This record gives sequence, structure tokens and C-alpha cells, in this order.
Amino acid sequence: MTEVIDKLNWRYATKKYNPAKKVDDAVLERILEAVRLAPTSSGLQPFEVFVVKNPELRAKIREVAWGQSQVTDASHLLVFAAWDNITPERINMMFDLTNDVRGFVNEGWEAYRKQLLGIVAARSDAANFDAAARQAYIALGVGMVAAAFEGVDATPMEGFDPAAVDQILSLQERKLRSVVILPLGYREEEGDWLVNLKKVRRPRDKFVTELA
Amino acid sequence: MTEVIDKLNWRYATKKYNPAKKVDDAVLERILEAVRLAPTSSGLQPFEVFVVKNPELRAKIREVAWGQSQVTDASHLLVFAAWDNITPERINMMFDLTNDVRGFVNEGWEAYRKQLLGIVAARSDAANFDAAARQAYIALGVGMVAAAFEGVDATPMEGFDPAAVDQILSLQERKLRSVVILPLGYREEEGDWLVNLKKVRRPRDKFVTELA
Repeated sequence: MTEVIDKLNWRYATKKYNPAKKVDDAVLERILEAVRLAPTSSGLQPFEVFVVKNPELRAKIREVAWGQSQVTDASHLLVFAAWDNITPERINMMFDLTNDVRGFVNEGWEAYRKQLLGIVAARSDAANFDAAARQAYIALGVGMVAAAFEGVDATPMEGFDPAAVDQILSLQERKLRSVVILPLGYREEEGDWLVNLKKVRRPRDKFVTELA
Repeated sequence: MTEVIDKLNWRYATKKYNPAKKVDDAVLERILEAVRLAPTSSGLQPFEVFVVKNPELRAKIREVAWGQSQVTDASHLLVFAAWDNITPERINMMFDLTNDVRGFVNEGWEAYRKQLLGIVAARSDAANFDAAARQAYIALGVGMVAAAFEGVDATPMEGFDPAAVDQILSLQERKLRSVVILPLGYREEEGDWLVNLKKVRRPRDKFVTELA
């Protein structure tokens, strides 16, 4: 059994946090760095991450998240917000950055830039947003593994009103839309109904099919 | 720097595989186990994973994947296929499994089952598929980290015709739709244009915003 499997078995969607236990800045930075390094389609990283510390903002978000206590009680709240559309400007920003970082212009890469600009132009804005949102979930997965390696609890949450969170955090001005939120902190075992229950996953034969 | 960050820096979207180097069965199983353990919204695991070993199937998929060599040259090809819809039957299957595994019926959980059945019924089939597809990306992210921990190269790929792959793998009969594919194997550095290029990510200040 690898350490990754151990950590995945250790983690669970924490239902109750100890509000007094804070995640150290250095630990938070390592989790954010893992999220930043997550792979994304065409390397676009078509999303941003907000670290919401402000208690008033957290209280407002909780109100539009079924009142779930993790939103305010966890040490930190991450909000993953996807690009509302994949525009030529955004594609060019990432391809130009790639050329800058690598210090040269690659012909194949430039051909791919044109191809991608065409693909994105042919899709609706809504389809581009959906494609961007999916990428944020790769980073969510990577971030949860990274948190588990740090011994930090996390709760992936879709149970909130995205439009309301967008308004609370003024995401529309940044042309972003919230897709998933992730409280981070330390579990308070007493009062967490899930902490001692068995993790449930479909058995391998109902989940994996080999085509030999 | 944690080991997770090290592994994320090690990995890259491998462009050329050594067709002679195969991933051991035990190693593959550990990667699949990490994928299986990935968290998903409401614990639904609304997707399945196909391990395509059959060379004819791999060749057919390559034809509808821009001819990309990784599809046939990698040791294994994983296909992540999301539920085409989130139906009451599927929700009940997972909630019943949860009760079975935990050995009791939890009142709160049963209330949540009803709530979720209502949410899903109020959404279009397309919106339910989109929600399912996003979950597959969490597992994709987790699987890529697990592969990197095993020293296994991986290439997340969206550049294929999903409807054509669905037909090749008869996914429609299983009410599934392919969303992303992941060749796994070992890099062949010679002839891989990406292997020695710098990884490009936006700097932290263009990616993370703190709201204090």
C-alpha cells in the first residue's frame, strides 16, 4: 500500500472543525503550491483560487451554503473559481507566458495555439466555462491529496449557491465563477457524525473494467 | 517542500512512451485503488474507469484522438467515463451500498438521500452529466498524483472525439460517456519534445487571491 492510498484512507469529508486550530501559513502555502502545480488541459490553468480569511465574508458564504458550519469554523476557506469563458485573450496570455518562461518560440506550440483558438471560438461560452470548471476539479483532487499529506482536514463542497458566492466575492468583475469550495483545518472528532463511519466506495469490479 | 510537490514537479504530460516498458500489475492496481478512493460529491462516484489493453481498441481510439501516439504506445490506457445521467436508480444504489457497508440506516443520511433525489430530478439530464463529469476529474487528479508516486508517467488527454470513443467501447449500452483518457507508462525521453522544457504555471500572485 502506498502512502497516497494511506492518505486517501485517512481523509474524509470533515463535518466538524475545531475553530481554535489554525493551519500554519507554511503548511497552507504548500497546499496552495500543489494546487498551482496541478496539470490542466493545454496548460491553461483556467481558474483561480481564493483564500477567504475574512470572517464577515465567511459568514455570508455560510448563509448561501445551507448554513454548513465548516464554512466558518474551518481554519481557511478555499474557493475555486473557473474562468467564465475561455477567451482568445486568456489563451494568448498563457501561451505568451509559456514562451516567456521557456525563452523561445516553439513552432509546434504556435500551431497548437491557433488550433486551440479555433476550438474555443467554435464552442459556446457556456461550453467553455464547463471545460474550465472541469479543470478546477483536477486541482481540487490534487489539493485534497496535498492537504492529507500535511495532516490537514478538508471538505470538498458543492452545496452552495454559486451565483450568490460570486456576488459576495465580486467574482463577476474578474470574469470568474465559483465552482467548488474547500474548507481546510483540523477535525473536531466530538460532534462529527462522519469521522468514525466506514468509507464507502464501490468495489473494484463495479468500478473498473478491463478490456483485454 | 513536500513529497507531493516534488512528484508534481517530476510529472509532465508525456509525449512519447517507450512501448516496450510495461507497468507492473501491482503498480497499476495501486494507481486504480487511488482513483477508486478519490472523493466525489455525495460519495456517488458517478463514473467508471476502463483499462484498455486490447491493441485493436487502442488503435481505433488513436484514430479518433488526432493520431496521438501515446494512446497506442503507452503501457496502459485508462478511459474515465461519466454516468450519462444521475438517475434515482444510481443514487439509490450508492445510498443503499452505504447503508450496507456501515451496517445501519442513518436518519440524516436518508433525509439527504431525499434531498439529493430532488436536486437531481430538478436538473436537466445534460446538467447531471456535467456534474458527473466534473467528479471524474477529481479522480483524474488523484490518479495522476498516485502515478507520479509510483514513478509512472501519465498524459491527461481531452483531445479525442468522445462520441467516437463511446462507440468503440460500447459505452452507451452502459449509460456512460467518455470524458478524459489517461495513458500510463514510461517516458521515452529521446523524441519527447516536452520532457526537457520548463513547466509553466502562472505565478502565485496571478493565481491565488487572499481575502483577509
